[in-house]
Amino acid sequence: MLFNIINNVRIICAKIVQIAKSGHPGMPLGISDLFSILWFYFYKINFLNINSINKDKLIISNGHGVLIQYVLLYYSNIYNFNDIINFRKFNSKTPGHPEKNEIIDASTGPLGQGVGIGVGIGIKNKINSFIFNKKINIINNKIWIINGDGCMMEGVSYETTSLCGVYKINNIILIYDSNNISIDGLIVTYFNENIRMRFTSLNWNIIGPVSGHSYYNIFKAYKLSLKSYFPTLIIFNTIIGFISPCKSYNEVVHGSIFNKNEFNFIIKNYCIKYIFKKKILIDNKIKYFKYFIFFYKKKYFELIRILNFIIPKINYIYIYTKNRYNCINKSTRFVSSVLLKNIFILPEITGGSADLSASNLTKNDFIGFFKKKKRYRYIKYGIREFGMSVINYGINLTKTGINFCSTFLVFMSYMYSSFRNFCISKIKNIFIFTHDSFLIGEDGPSHQPVEHLKSLRIIPRIIVFRPYNFIEVIICWNIALKLKKNIVCIILSRQNFINNEIKFYNVKNIIKGGYFVLNKKKNDLIIVSCGADLEICFICSKYLNKYFLINIFSIYSSNLLNKQKKNFKNIFINKKILFIESSNDNSILKYKSLYTFILGINKFGKSSNTKELLKYYNITKKNIIKICLYIIKKKF
Amino acid sequence: MLFNIINNVRIICAKIVQIAKSGHPGMPLGISDLFSILWFYFYKINFLNINSINKDKLIISNGHGVLIQYVLLYYSNIYNFNDIINFRKFNSKTPGHPEKNEIIDASTGPLGQGVGIGVGIGIKNKINSFIFNKKINIINNKIWIINGDGCMMEGVSYETTSLCGVYKINNIILIYDSNNISIDGLIVTYFNENIRMRFTSLNWNIIGPVSGHSYYNIFKAYKLSLKSYFPTLIIFNTIIGFISPCKSYNEVVHGSIFNKNEFNFIIKNYCIKYIFKKKILIDNKIKYFKYFIFFYKKKYFELIRILNFIIPKINYIYIYTKNRYNCINKSTRFVSSVLLKNIFILPEITGGSADLSASNLTKNDFIGFFKKKKRYRYIKYGIREFGMSVINYGINLTKTGINFCSTFLVFMSYMYSSFRNFCISKIKNIFIFTHDSFLIGEDGPSHQPVEHLKSLRIIPRIIVFRPYNFIEVIICWNIALKLKKNIVCIILSRQNFINNEIKFYNVKNIIKGGYFVLNKKKNDLIIVSCGADLEICFICSKYLNKYFLINIFSIYSSNLLNKQKKNFKNIFINKKILFIESSNDNSILKYKSLYTFILGINKFGKSSNTKELLKYYNITKKNIIKICLYIIKKKF
Repeated sequence: MLFNIINNVRIICAKIVQIAKSGHPGMPLGISDLFSILWFYFYKINFLNINSINKDKLIISNGHGVLIQYVLLYYSNIYNFNDIINFRKFNSKTPGHPEKNEIIDASTGPLGQGVGIGVGIGIKNKINSFIFNKKINIINNKIWIINGDGCMMEGVSYETTSLCGVYKINNIILIYDSNNISIDGLIVTYFNENIRMRFTSLNWNIIGPVSGHSYYNIFKAYKLSLKSYFPTLIIFNTIIGFISPCKSYNEVVHGSIFNKNEFNFIIKNYCIKYIFKKKILIDNKIKYFKYFIFFYKKKYFELIRILNFIIPKINYIYIYTKNRYNCINKSTRFVSSVLLKNIFILPEITGGSADLSASNLTKNDFIGFFKKKKRYRYIKYGIREFGMSVINYGINLTKTGINFCSTFLVFMSYMYSSFRNFCISKIKNIFIFTHDSFLIGEDGPSHQPVEHLKSLRIIPRIIVFRPYNFIEVIICWNIALKLKKNIVCIILSRQNFINNEIKFYNVKNIIKGGYFVLNKKKNDLIIVSCGADLEICFICSKYLNKYFLINIFSIYSSNLLNKQKKNFKNIFINKKILFIESSNDNSILKYKSLYTFILGINKFGKSSNTKELLKYYNITKKNIIKICLYIIKKKF
Repeated sequence: MLFNIINNVRIICAKIVQIAKSGHPGMPLGISDLFSILWFYFYKINFLNINSINKDKLIISNGHGVLIQYVLLYYSNIYNFNDIINFRKFNSKTPGHPEKNEIIDASTGPLGQGVGIGVGIGIKNKINSFIFNKKINIINNKIWIINGDGCMMEGVSYETTSLCGVYKINNIILIYDSNNISIDGLIVTYFNENIRMRFTSLNWNIIGPVSGHSYYNIFKAYKLSLKSYFPTLIIFNTIIGFISPCKSYNEVVHGSIFNKNEFNFIIKNYCIKYIFKKKILIDNKIKYFKYFIFFYKKKYFELIRILNFIIPKINYIYIYTKNRYNCINKSTRFVSSVLLKNIFILPEITGGSADLSASNLTKNDFIGFFKKKKRYRYIKYGIREFGMSVINYGINLTKTGINFCSTFLVFMSYMYSSFRNFCISKIKNIFIFTHDSFLIGEDGPSHQPVEHLKSLRIIPRIIVFRPYNFIEVIICWNIALKLKKNIVCIILSRQNFINNEIKFYNVKNIIKGGYFVLNKKKNDLIIVSCGADLEICFICSKYLNKYFLINIFSIYSSNLLNKQKKNFKNIFINKKILFIESSNDNSILKYKSLYTFILGINKFGKSSNTKELLKYYNITKKNIIKICLYIIKKKF
């Protein structure tokens, strides 16, 4: 009976790849046994109530094998025949790699990241369970993560499983499809770790290795995995492309379709007569929810508020008035920390840093996760930037609250791959990147950003902010909190600088991403800049404005400005522009101005003090005034 | 005696940080004992012959502690008093983090990468020893890597130590400065691995944990480490900031200076009377070299050729003539592989792929490293992109040969952080990135590059190539082989396309990074494009050229074009430009043309076939012709 069902799953997998004429049959055929048993007997989800916060989560980290999930969704009457026939077709529900939607829990594909996503869900669920589980456990679901040899090799999976072990996130069950084959062949020539020992060293509970084709072993392993004080790894030995006569045990089955003869052989090997559809396990725990509502009304309404993404009104005016004198001429990392201290009171916010809490100023006196159960919302990620980012994807997947993480801007390049996954899936997160320019000084070129601002800004759907003072910081955070489907990067300075030069605010204009901070109506030149770089612009304009009309434009978010209507974006047309930023972003050129001069940086810095560095990059008062005069006098 | 010397080292470290008024005293004070003993008794280097290929290498992966090395260089009379007094000053020999030069083996700073760099040196030295070690071992040096808790947490150190374990690179000795403190405090709340067990699972030889302040233990550990069939890890338990009275055992000592009182206390704690200078061990093995020259003349001259970076002449014309018909209308990854097959014959080339050999087409029938000793130059890195890149940094540090590595373009974002380290240190490497556009199709948005081309091109000193056909591929490789201080990225298509449309070649122009592939002298419009995107440009121009004069410009390397003289770059001035590329690079705008239209991609793709995707992105013949007509008719 079960044998028939599972072999049916196998054949449908093979068939669909044949129809699509491309795809990855190796992994689905190999894990059909263990995946089907998981699906039918252990994975608790109620497709009638897909948004239940306590449904089990299923992440396929080796996303190329997502076909198996599609087929089982078809088996469970969630996907219909057309859905699976349209595998890898335009706008189908069944793309080549998992893409997050109501049913698929996470986008994966680039290997290793799915493991971290699962860990993130686990961490946030733990936090939520501390808040909301009273005598009734309304949050106690499991996170099932499937991963393969490839994921095991990626550093990010190591980083996140290591953290998971420290935090004892015991709602996580990592299923390792160990078939010893990757695209380059038998992995033993480049991967021969003792996985049991590795995960023991990371403080995990380990089950197996057991055969991934023996039903008895599979059942037993899953049953064992349900109760553990530690995260659990199940090692299943499988055969890739099981039961293809020519291609099983071979890397060619990973990503290529079968020829006709072989396909017919596969069909013949199984004597299947009918397709049998089975309903899935329903999460019975849902009934407890009613008791919860009854006994813990206040908690219940808080949970509903958070799930519906209703943020309590934050009294920005009060915060501003109370702290404004304290924030004048301070670094924006400090200014932001003052605001964050007030926002972090909201119970749904989770934050953390990759071992730079004291430099990012994100800590706010909350001590580490799990140390005291009452203060758990600040996560020390350790020196694991990529892991931190991927975990935040998972944290945000739970849709319970607002989350941020922080590190130096220069280290965003460790996590560069993860940003696009956020953006593809339309997942929200707030990244705080401090130490935003070469003015970090003595630590030298390895710590001084050059290309980072630009390479962030060009990722579709991202919003990058680089605020100048308290008011801009408030606006950035306000927008960041409200956005639901974008990641927001808030770029902050390390150094203190003069940031009280803006005399006039028009919030309606400011929220557009850019606005005139010095506006003399008619003008000879507009200086465009943002963040701490505005300091020198004001210094120079003070001198120049004795003789000319210089305007200054703060473009604290070019991503936002680009989203404005055309007539607002046209502010630079037929104007002379000088763009100053300590980055090599030259996208100001797309605003069709009469003449644009860019004073950026195009080379790596030096280990030195501020003064020498400004000279080295030619960002001095003298040079800027010279450039301004040149532009003003230039005729067209 | 040794006690006095080492304490002297300590005091100088503390003193220099006081003078510089910034820096990281914690780690140098903590490792003074173990580092000084390593330096004076085990680290074999002859500073009179600094370029000896067999000198021991020393990589400080936790680069913020490089001060200790500076101080010992001063002790060994290599650095003078001024050098160390100018610590962290502009253009000094002693920047805040290690910067590669004749004496400092590698630039480090961003944590974890130094470990991989060391592994890379180890791998290449092993390869070289297979080639050159006959009865006389002329290459048998050790690679000493110092790393701390931070490096241990980073995924990249795990990736590279894992690979190192498989390959049994036993010339590597990893010294773990385990002080249990990082910036966020006691690491036990976010890092509590059993390091012994972890490295056992990775097939390493492990020594310790032993005290890093007991001379006896330190000597014993180093002695033990010298002979092993496996890479060796030595775990030293140290006290951060040893022997500061208030700040040792505490995270504040990591990155902040002492106050005056405390500094005086430290001085008092040691009763040092004089500064003693000591000479360093000389690598005696060098004398064997003479015998080597005598007995193995041919090998010797080959080694000298490789060390002097003399590449034998490659008969490109022969290769071209022989394969041109085979390469017409093929994917550029195929075309490049044909050429690579001929280049790979050179014994100094090492290559590899992150588990995509069959897709990158870089394998060339050479089987994996270590499988048979005769065929060792192709490295299967496993699914470890970041690790691969960092290892290549190390491989290139040995200055013995030309090296490449390969993966999909979209996965370059896993290694983004490593590129800048190459560029900062002016280290050469060739990166082959295939599957260069959304036309990979069905694998969907997670595998379709958008921002990647741009974010590569903006890194200072990088050279990015995106060739169109056999001739351009040859030119790219020719330049790539010859460049000594730049990393080169060769971006190649997965799909076959029509690439035999260029009728005229003028190599003198082509090597400038861009040239007219269709030139009608006068023109109504210039279409600028590169690589596989040129296909549709030719299709459209064929239609349009019946009515108008359309030129096409292949900008196969914008980085190269930017390096040209101004008058060559001015080709677009007062011209109408249409730029077509399947990326979101808009830097074409910096060439001050009369009018520029960019047809790029600014959103994530879909899992679908080529045809649907081209429609989705509007890169169709119909749309391009429409745009061309619009531009041509537009008046200024």
